[in-house]
Amino acid sequence: MKRIDWNRLDPAARSAVLQRPVQAVSETVRTGVQAIFEAVAARGDDALRAYTAQFDGVELAALEVDADEFARAERLVPAEVQAAIREAAARIEAFHRAGMASSYQLDTAPGLTCQRVQRPIQRVGLYVPAGSAPLPSTALMLCVPARLAGCPEIILCTPPRADGSADPAVLLAARQAPGVRVFKLGGAQAIAAMALGTASVPRCDKLFGPGNAWVDEAKRQAAQRLGGPAIDMPAGPSEVLVIADSGANPAFVAADLLSQAEHGPDSQVLLLTDSEALLQAVAEHVEAQLERLPRAEIARRALASSRLVLVEDIKQAVEISNAYAPEHLILAVRQPHAWLPQVTRAGSVFLGDWTPEALGDYCSGSNHVLPTGGAARAWSGLSVASFQTAITVQEASRDGLRVAGPCAAVLAHAEGLQAHARAIELRLEQPA
Amino acid sequence: MKRIDWNRLDPAARSAVLQRPVQAVSETVRTGVQAIFEAVAARGDDALRAYTAQFDGVELAALEVDADEFARAERLVPAEVQAAIREAAARIEAFHRAGMASSYQLDTAPGLTCQRVQRPIQRVGLYVPAGSAPLPSTALMLCVPARLAGCPEIILCTPPRADGSADPAVLLAARQAPGVRVFKLGGAQAIAAMALGTASVPRCDKLFGPGNAWVDEAKRQAAQRLGGPAIDMPAGPSEVLVIADSGANPAFVAADLLSQAEHGPDSQVLLLTDSEALLQAVAEHVEAQLERLPRAEIARRALASSRLVLVEDIKQAVEISNAYAPEHLILAVRQPHAWLPQVTRAGSVFLGDWTPEALGDYCSGSNHVLPTGGAARAWSGLSVASFQTAITVQEASRDGLRVAGPCAAVLAHAEGLQAHARAIELRLEQPA
Ligand SMILES: [Zn+2]
Ligand SMILES: [Zn+2]
Repeated sequence: MKRIDWNRLDPAARSAVLQRPVQAVSETVRTGVQAIFEAVAARGDDALRAYTAQFDGVELAALEVDADEFARAERLVPAEVQAAIREAAARIEAFHRAGMASSYQLDTAPGLTCQRVQRPIQRVGLYVPAGSAPLPSTALMLCVPARLAGCPEIILCTPPRADGSADPAVLLAARQAPGVRVFKLGGAQAIAAMALGTASVPRCDKLFGPGNAWVDEAKRQAAQRLGGPAIDMPAGPSEVLVIADSGANPAFVAADLLSQAEHGPDSQVLLLTDSEALLQAVAEHVEAQLERLPRAEIARRALASSRLVLVEDIKQAVEISNAYAPEHLILAVRQPHAWLPQVTRAGSVFLGDWTPEALGDYCSGSNHVLPTGGAARAWSGLSVASFQTAITVQEASRDGLRVAGPCAAVLAHAEGLQAHARAIELRLEQPA
Repeated sequence: MKRIDWNRLDPAARSAVLQRPVQAVSETVRTGVQAIFEAVAARGDDALRAYTAQFDGVELAALEVDADEFARAERLVPAEVQAAIREAAARIEAFHRAGMASSYQLDTAPGLTCQRVQRPIQRVGLYVPAGSAPLPSTALMLCVPARLAGCPEIILCTPPRADGSADPAVLLAARQAPGVRVFKLGGAQAIAAMALGTASVPRCDKLFGPGNAWVDEAKRQAAQRLGGPAIDMPAGPSEVLVIADSGANPAFVAADLLSQAEHGPDSQVLLLTDSEALLQAVAEHVEAQLERLPRAEIARRALASSRLVLVEDIKQAVEISNAYAPEHLILAVRQPHAWLPQVTRAGSVFLGDWTPEALGDYCSGSNHVLPTGGAARAWSGLSVASFQTAITVQEASRDGLRVAGPCAAVLAHAEGLQAHARAIELRLEQPA
């Protein structure tokens, strides 16, 4: 891991430290995804079957998971994992439900009422990857808020396994949205199917969920289509920034850095500390813990580009973090509550020594689908609102129009929009 | 205006009625915008000055509006218009403030607290067009919620007039966000400046506001850049769908259709009614009112592609509207409240005979920056939340981790992420 003394760097070197590796989309991926969209648009399910044979190595009779396969999943998943799925779902539900926007209304003038009402997005498309491992936790993070939002149609795609079945733990997690329809489709072809619709897969209004470079590029291309679906947020490699003071436990900090690093070789890992002793101790603990990890090889590659940064004080660390806008921010400091108000940009924050990021990945109750790559500057993690739209409503009585109408007519004339003014004046002139 | 009897159409003809004209981006615009981004990236302010000379016909010494120009605006704008700006701003503020999300927190387990906190987006870029007429109302719709959100830096671009000044009414409206910085820049070069940053114009985290085809394409290209800014929503021509029953006032309905039609020749206008008499009367009133409109020529072109549709009943009309997902929906029916719960997709809804859409454009209190082109399927109009991000926060005590940690560890093992499990187990194993 690279060690850096922040206050010895010039501005250019500082901004280089905060620069994420450019995730330029390779030409292969870009044109490959274009070809997949064209094929799915032209040949629908036939194209989906062909890609599934090609990329996943299975010939599927039916793309959709049926009742039998759901029933089988309940027999296959160990009771302990089933209980953990239920426990995590309950905590995710409790926290997401408490944050739901309610409809509201306000009289903005006598006889003029404005409202905002929430509506579920009618058809949402969820993607649950299964790269190095299937991710039932991602199914929970997508299905629980979609159900709370009231989405009438919930479509979920996840890649088939070699035997043509879907991962049973993913299926049980998906069932947290009882009416969910699950399709055994992975990669860009899954996204193309949900964006365009085929005979089997309904066309969705908004697409959600993480994926590999092909999935990310497919979501990007889907969102660029005129009249195409919305997407949850731009995607990129997962990342953590830890701010630790001299009182932090170096073994805990090392474990958190490693849990981020094992996500993938492109994971971003940053430690900012004002204690040289802590920095040194964390580096040693990382090496020691790495020995025992099954995914040590992946973690080692991620750590090669990670950085341990010595800073002046915690205030400076928070400023650097705000500039970086990390997906996950761990405040392993003595007074985390005192620093939280200074945090302006981050996906999700973990306070103190006893809140490992892994807790948020699974079951603290917060959502783990979070903005990466600096997107926390302008995007938020998923919430129930991500699965809803808000419609504004206004109603004037005749008297209300008498109060508010003249203001609108003046502005309409000022903007040269006479028909707008007439729509008001005509009503005001109407004999009683 | 084209008249259609819905129930005589086959499914293909029905979907043709709801099809919006394809707003394909012309190759000229696409490559033109690309060239502008490249020039602004390479030459910054010099490129901005050159484009402003070329497209707006003015050589600007300073791109930014200074205090003198703001002061001059107060002398130039008629008192009546100034009062209307203040009145509209007050109503917009009241409604938007009432809908602001508050931070909340919940103990999801004993010793485990989750929070969601709101943060203003640090630097927002607003675009206020001045095509056929300057739009102070759009400045209000962007600046008031940006101020309520607490955005510390608010950048606004609006095209210069022939004499090099900004429209004074737009400046006064912009002042509703007191610290706003206004730049006299229009078109794609304004968007490129806010997306990339130059010596004069700060690089923004999110871009807002409507514009012409060049501005729309520039926002699209800005959003596609890796690490680029967020944008408020995809843009397209403005549209209204009116549902009217036999009790509706045909002169009012005609005035509403015309006020939409005058926005531009590509405006979309649809009337759905179950009354043939009303349909006939509206058509006659449109012709009669059209005579007296200064922008009759624009309105006539929009009306050429608009449709008056006879439907079976209001229930069917609402279903058609939901499939179309209009930006503006007017419910000129006797029981608008009874129908509102059935409305699943729309930007903003106007209830009854006395709520012309023009009221919402200016001063009902709701926002007039709304999803067009069917985007209401998945996007909402602007609100204070559009100018904020939500950060989730979690904090476990040692006891809290004992309660919730095992669930996370089970799921981490099930997903093959041992370092995640270790980050929890290591803490749980720590001697007290
Ligand atoms: Zn993780
Ligand atoms: Zn209008």
